[in-house]
Amino acid sequence: MQNIYTDLAMEMAEGLDTDNLTGIEMDVVEQDSTKITTIHVVDEQGANTLGKPMGSYITIESPEIKQNNFTAHEEIMGILVRQLALLRDGLGIDDNGTVLVIGLGNRDVTPDALGPKVVEGVLVTRHIMGTLPEELLGGLRPISALAPGVMGMTGIETAEVVKGLVGNVCPQLVIAIDALAARSINRINQTIQLTDTGISPGAGVGNRRAALDEATLGVPVIAIGVPTVVDAATFVNDTLDIFLAGMAEEAPEHLRDGAEFFRMLTQLEEQDKYAVIRNSLEPAVGNMFVTPKEIGEVVKWLAGIIANGINIAMHKGIDMDDINRFMY
Amino acid sequence: MQNIYTDLAMEMAEGLDTDNLTGIEMDVVEQDSTKITTIHVVDEQGANTLGKPMGSYITIESPEIKQNNFTAHEEIMGILVRQLALLRDGLGIDDNGTVLVIGLGNRDVTPDALGPKVVEGVLVTRHIMGTLPEELLGGLRPISALAPGVMGMTGIETAEVVKGLVGNVCPQLVIAIDALAARSINRINQTIQLTDTGISPGAGVGNRRAALDEATLGVPVIAIGVPTVVDAATFVNDTLDIFLAGMAEEAPEHLRDGAEFFRMLTQLEEQDKYAVIRNSLEPAVGNMFVTPKEIGEVVKWLAGIIANGINIAMHKGIDMDDINRFMY
Amino acid sequence: MQNIYTDLAMEMAEGLDTDNLTGIEMDVVEQDSTKITTIHVVDEQGANTLGKPMGSYITIESPEIKQNNFTAHEEIMGILVRQLALLRDGLGIDDNGTVLVIGLGNRDVTPDALGPKVVEGVLVTRHIMGTLPEELLGGLRPISALAPGVMGMTGIETAEVVKGLVGNVCPQLVIAIDALAARSINRINQTIQLTDTGISPGAGVGNRRAALDEATLGVPVIAIGVPTVVDAATFVNDTLDIFLAGMAEEAPEHLRDGAEFFRMLTQLEEQDKYAVIRNSLEPAVGNMFVTPKEIGEVVKWLAGIIANGINIAMHKGIDMDDINRFMY
Amino acid sequence: MQNIYTDLAMEMAEGLDTDNLTGIEMDVVEQDSTKITTIHVVDEQGANTLGKPMGSYITIESPEIKQNNFTAHEEIMGILVRQLALLRDGLGIDDNGTVLVIGLGNRDVTPDALGPKVVEGVLVTRHIMGTLPEELLGGLRPISALAPGVMGMTGIETAEVVKGLVGNVCPQLVIAIDALAARSINRINQTIQLTDTGISPGAGVGNRRAALDEATLGVPVIAIGVPTVVDAATFVNDTLDIFLAGMAEEAPEHLRDGAEFFRMLTQLEEQDKYAVIRNSLEPAVGNMFVTPKEIGEVVKWLAGIIANGINIAMHKGIDMDDINRFMY
Repeated sequence: MQNIYTDLAMEMAEGLDTDNLTGIEMDVVEQDSTKITTIHVVDEQGANTLGKPMGSYITIESPEIKQNNFTAHEEIMGILVRQLALLRDGLGIDDNGTVLVIGLGNRDVTPDALGPKVVEGVLVTRHIMGTLPEELLGGLRPISALAPGVMGMTGIETAEVVKGLVGNVCPQLVIAIDALAARSINRINQTIQLTDTGISPGAGVGNRRAALDEATLGVPVIAIGVPTVVDAATFVNDTLDIFLAGMAEEAPEHLRDGAEFFRMLTQLEEQDKYAVIRNSLEPAVGNMFVTPKEIGEVVKWLAGIIANGINIAMHKGIDMDDINRFMY
Repeated sequence: MQNIYTDLAMEMAEGLDTDNLTGIEMDVVEQDSTKITTIHVVDEQGANTLGKPMGSYITIESPEIKQNNFTAHEEIMGILVRQLALLRDGLGIDDNGTVLVIGLGNRDVTPDALGPKVVEGVLVTRHIMGTLPEELLGGLRPISALAPGVMGMTGIETAEVVKGLVGNVCPQLVIAIDALAARSINRINQTIQLTDTGISPGAGVGNRRAALDEATLGVPVIAIGVPTVVDAATFVNDTLDIFLAGMAEEAPEHLRDGAEFFRMLTQLEEQDKYAVIRNSLEPAVGNMFVTPKEIGEVVKWLAGIIANGINIAMHKGIDMDDINRFMY
Repeated sequence: MQNIYTDLAMEMAEGLDTDNLTGIEMDVVEQDSTKITTIHVVDEQGANTLGKPMGSYITIESPEIKQNNFTAHEEIMGILVRQLALLRDGLGIDDNGTVLVIGLGNRDVTPDALGPKVVEGVLVTRHIMGTLPEELLGGLRPISALAPGVMGMTGIETAEVVKGLVGNVCPQLVIAIDALAARSINRINQTIQLTDTGISPGAGVGNRRAALDEATLGVPVIAIGVPTVVDAATFVNDTLDIFLAGMAEEAPEHLRDGAEFFRMLTQLEEQDKYAVIRNSLEPAVGNMFVTPKEIGEVVKWLAGIIANGINIAMHKGIDMDDINRFMY
Repeated sequence: MQNIYTDLAMEMAEGLDTDNLTGIEMDVVEQDSTKITTIHVVDEQGANTLGKPMGSYITIESPEIKQNNFTAHEEIMGILVRQLALLRDGLGIDDNGTVLVIGLGNRDVTPDALGPKVVEGVLVTRHIMGTLPEELLGGLRPISALAPGVMGMTGIETAEVVKGLVGNVCPQLVIAIDALAARSINRINQTIQLTDTGISPGAGVGNRRAALDEATLGVPVIAIGVPTVVDAATFVNDTLDIFLAGMAEEAPEHLRDGAEFFRMLTQLEEQDKYAVIRNSLEPAVGNMFVTPKEIGEVVKWLAGIIANGINIAMHKGIDMDDINRFMY
């Protein structure tokens, strides 16, 4: 059993015994260099097993997200649009239903600025629906979008801000975007997770906060998250494994005598090892995160992919042929 | 009678016959290069005469606001603190009552970014009151602060966003900061208006929107506004007057024959002249504003003065001796 | 004769007697809603007549630049690419010659931030040419790009900074981008001027500075400019004309008696009128500019159009089919 | 012997045998919670021993730098001013000599934005010396300041840009500010290093680049650096040590049998261990850095401390009594 927290359902599923999954349906599709993993948690037993609420979790993985490659970004956006449309239809959202987009995170800290940047790229229309000409009206739905900032800057729980907005805007659907923390450094900036079960903001750079989900807001919440950081303790845990493996192969001859100990270390229960790390690192690094040097550029690309993915999936008058006009 | 809209009560009072003011009390104090004009509208008759709701309007004017002069900025902040404290006490706000600061305007358009920049400088505490040591607790009140963006970017009336916040944060007082449009180019960036009657956001750069006041929010609203722009039609109106006066003195001899016409033009009822301008300029310049070249710097200074003025006036543990630690 | 300064050659040509132009060749092409005006100043007599140095001036005008219309922006970018390519070839720049892009202006003042924003979108390659695989190498030239800031923030004449850069980077061509001041409010944000004669930075929001041209830098300079502001005195001048015309039609009957004077005013020599305005407005508005409320969005679109126009015109491996992948 | 690179001379000195230091003079002063370490490398032998060029290295360490404490920041700024003045006088800079401030780093990546943010706070005067009144002239020297961006965004080695500037501005002194990489996570954001030996930009978040020093620029270079990140491999190395120590105390009983191996691991030569880590982590984390969650705020404070420290130490008319007017 594993209990290191990760925001990615896919990472939580990794430790499970796939032969005996009751209440969890998994499906993996590969398409060129992109891998799409769909997990449906269909009953309470599945939810308990996975440690995540009932609902759908779609993970789009591609190393090309973090490469400067426009064509690849367009393809990933196309995949995102289709998956968003599936979630939208699964939730029974009307073609004309109001959508509220919430960009979580702190615009002043680069890897946490994904949500606010997506909000900048969303085509908001709610305030102009009354003034649009007939021919446009059919293709657009009312969308509003706001980046509420983080609690450290506002003094207000993000869930409180959003609750207030939902009460006044009365959307049929909330879409929340946030930077996440991944378990594995290999998923940073190359994974987009969609889910219809909502989100707990601040998991990435800040501290975990009150959830944004149908239970708290009264309307369904599609969450779009991208892991942009790994927290420092998790990072040490992962790299320790790499280090130990590396030592076995690369360490000077006279050090390999510890081989017996190596085996022990690598066989440590994950949760024991993580607890040791967490305890021994606090307070020195308890508040630190790890992110790649190119984070500035990649967040900009990701924001373009997600904002335009939302525009296309939500405004039915904007179809796939328009994708390439919407980049960044 | 005058009906060119201005956000400054002081400008609206300028055209009034001061001998016959019923229901309006005016007081002007000069202190070095700073002039403080206080207008109390004490009954409905006064409100009708001025064209502004009952309440207090304090205008702090100093040409030094827009000069790079730290000492002068400190003094202006000191004046602002005292006036804010008077409004706070006049409204009967408790020492420990929650305050919600709202920074109106668009952070991406320099002269409209005042409100969002003030929010960045406010010392928010609402989320940490529970964890503060006893000795600090007495000196701080719960403050939260948010810049909700403008309707063009969010699709949501700012008043709706704030109504939602008030419903969840339950403050005793809202303080709203906004960039204003002045009537006179001479007031730009050198005037701070405080009032306990609330505000209509978007008067500066955007379009006038639903009011933030006690009637709409259910709690009193202190508004702090600074004119950072003049709208283009108003600007033409003002400069036309200057031009006509200038023509009389500087125009080539053979042109002064129009002197009779000059008199007529200058005697035009303000409202007639403004209507002609507004009509003839639309649509070419109807959507334009005028602002000085140094606007970037001045907005930064103004944000420092106002944010720290709020910090000192609202957190009683931060006294005047601390002023100089809070600049910019 | 006209002597109000404008950065647009096209505006300077407007007052000329087109029957007797020696040394100036003009050509106007209209393509849908876009108008392309090409002026070649071919000898010294032409330069004296126009008041601009010998060289080519291309003006691309389209009201769609300032509209939220991706397709139109792509078309304008296509036109820009072709015109840039013509200038590039006219100057005899090698396919592999180093290009230095200079983004003039102040990133903190919205209408002056065009140059710095273009720099962010340019595909710089000079530092990686040595590490590129053979197959890419043929399609890319070494490009470097820098936004040197404005003299008020750096204390250094921009021409000095660029001279230093040219001495060390040794480009074959400098491309300088700047926000300009237009003469007419109708050209703001809907005109792109290209020229192979260089530029005097700061004409838009700041003060005019030392020129960036082949004489000062030793290499040819293509300047790309967009008028984003009108200076306040020019604006008054223009709107005064509109106002006077409007008065004639809309003013109350009893005011029209000044009709004789109207004619006089409208017949004033431009330069006399401008001088009166300039004198009578100083110092009150001498330092002010006029810009439209939507300037934030439009500068972003313009930066996308120009940055990608440069990328395509300068890197021969990026062809027109890639245009739509490069927007914003 | 140690060969893990660190930008801090103090960290390089830590491994040295202090009984046998020839050519290196060290001095440590503690003042409340601030510790000032001065290292003078006085001859070539000392330079070889330390692995740093001859010159002075002053390190100001205080945990209060990263706390929201205005009074403490003022005190640290006072210390910085005195140390800067010592270096300035040691280099024999005239009271009126021109100073060029260079803010290194990438303004779009939070922990690397220190240099550009300091440039924003420097009081630049070089362009206005000719217009200043006599009484101010004596108190100000010509200062210019520029943030040249990073090579990944400009395509130009920063040293090339600065060389060009020095050739045109002709300063007596260059002051370069950069974010650094520390060896120890405990030094992040609480250490300011000053040196009169120059700097190699990009050590923090980017890649090491050509040096800015008297040898390359022809004028002395004071470098001011603050470690804001630890590179990922160094971080793993450090935390591995903490982990191993923690294991010995906290690991489950049955794991402590590896005690013999622990000793071996902890006795590994630093350079062997680092090499193993570096090799085994590449390419997965080779490009990653570690930084604390509050980096956004702390960089703002640091920029205020350093910019105003430079203003006071370099403009003799701004004395210590003015310190508190200059914060942030």
